[in-house]
Amino acid sequence: MPVFAVIGHRARTDGHWSLNDMPGGAGRMDVLCRVVNTSFFLSHDLRRDVVCYLVLRGEPGPEKTIRFQGDRLRHLNPDERSAGSLIKKALELEAGPEFRESTKGVSVRVGGLVRLLGEHSFALLDEQGEDIRVAERLPDAFLLSDHLNLDEEELALVGDLPCFSVGPRSLHADHTITVLLNELDRRGP
Amino acid sequence: MPVFAVIGHRARTDGHWSLNDMPGGAGRMDVLCRVVNTSFFLSHDLRRDVVCYLVLRGEPGPEKTIRFQGDRLRHLNPDERSAGSLIKKALELEAGPEFRESTKGVSVRVGGLVRLLGEHSFALLDEQGEDIRVAERLPDAFLLSDHLNLDEEELALVGDLPCFSVGPRSLHADHTITVLLNELDRRGP
Repeated sequence: MPVFAVIGHRARTDGHWSLNDMPGGAGRMDVLCRVVNTSFFLSHDLRRDVVCYLVLRGEPGPEKTIRFQGDRLRHLNPDERSAGSLIKKALELEAGPEFRESTKGVSVRVGGLVRLLGEHSFALLDEQGEDIRVAERLPDAFLLSDHLNLDEEELALVGDLPCFSVGPRSLHADHTITVLLNELDRRGP
Repeated sequence: MPVFAVIGHRARTDGHWSLNDMPGGAGRMDVLCRVVNTSFFLSHDLRRDVVCYLVLRGEPGPEKTIRFQGDRLRHLNPDERSAGSLIKKALELEAGPEFRESTKGVSVRVGGLVRLLGEHSFALLDEQGEDIRVAERLPDAFLLSDHLNLDEEELALVGDLPCFSVGPRSLHADHTITVLLNELDRRGP
């Protein structure tokens, strides 16, 4: 069960943004939409064993976490607006401390990275890490950042996590997940 | 210089479609937008050595080919609407038999696969091909299909091309390109 979590540093925590302006007014929500796409889509199929968390740290706060569960997902199409629409619906739901489902397979709660780190044994995906192709064993859960680097507060939280790299070039979060899933596919269940 | 060409079987050949409905009215133009994203984007950089062709075979015709050249590209952002907007501008330009530039690094001509096959030594990316990780040498130019399989006419044209696979699962065209570029990155220039 691969688990991905991506930090959206400026991603809005309410639904007051337009699907036509996800890179701007929504705080680079387009990055998170592409992460959702690449976490789940196979050709004519979905990766039912994947769970993907989006940690939204932008305005107006407080932080929220949206969870996409492959085994329950419906209504997700590959285009950015489709994922964006499901994120928007999640953010329009009143969120509490426990996950509440907004659409099938998509749920939301208040809270961010601190709590999530206590729930999964994450590894960090970063250019400085061990190459995933040579690593003897790969973990089940991976943490990534959006277009911004981890800030000091986040680095203090994740500084001790194991660290893996997908190759010699620095890639976008969604492309990193694609390469990682290819390695996991090749290793088999 | 990696070259990618993707066939958009239903992608409209004029500009009469909305950036808000690329999967529907534009004939799955969203697939081609994601191919453009993954062909060029590195973290905070573009792959300047890549060329990406979109072969548009939808209504109203005739077929057109749009060329994105990494070494000249400007104005491309990672979100789907950004690539869509550049495609739309290219389709709004009157196209002739030779490439005409619509925006910096993006150009368009009338014509499709037959002509392109005469200009590059393409290999096909397909699940049945030789694994890119074990192939002794990889070609410079790769041909992919969008969400639809190649039709009989296309198969007759490409039947003799060498064929490569990126792994055990069948992936979307954009994800396939990401995995392939990772292999090329690892092999070096």
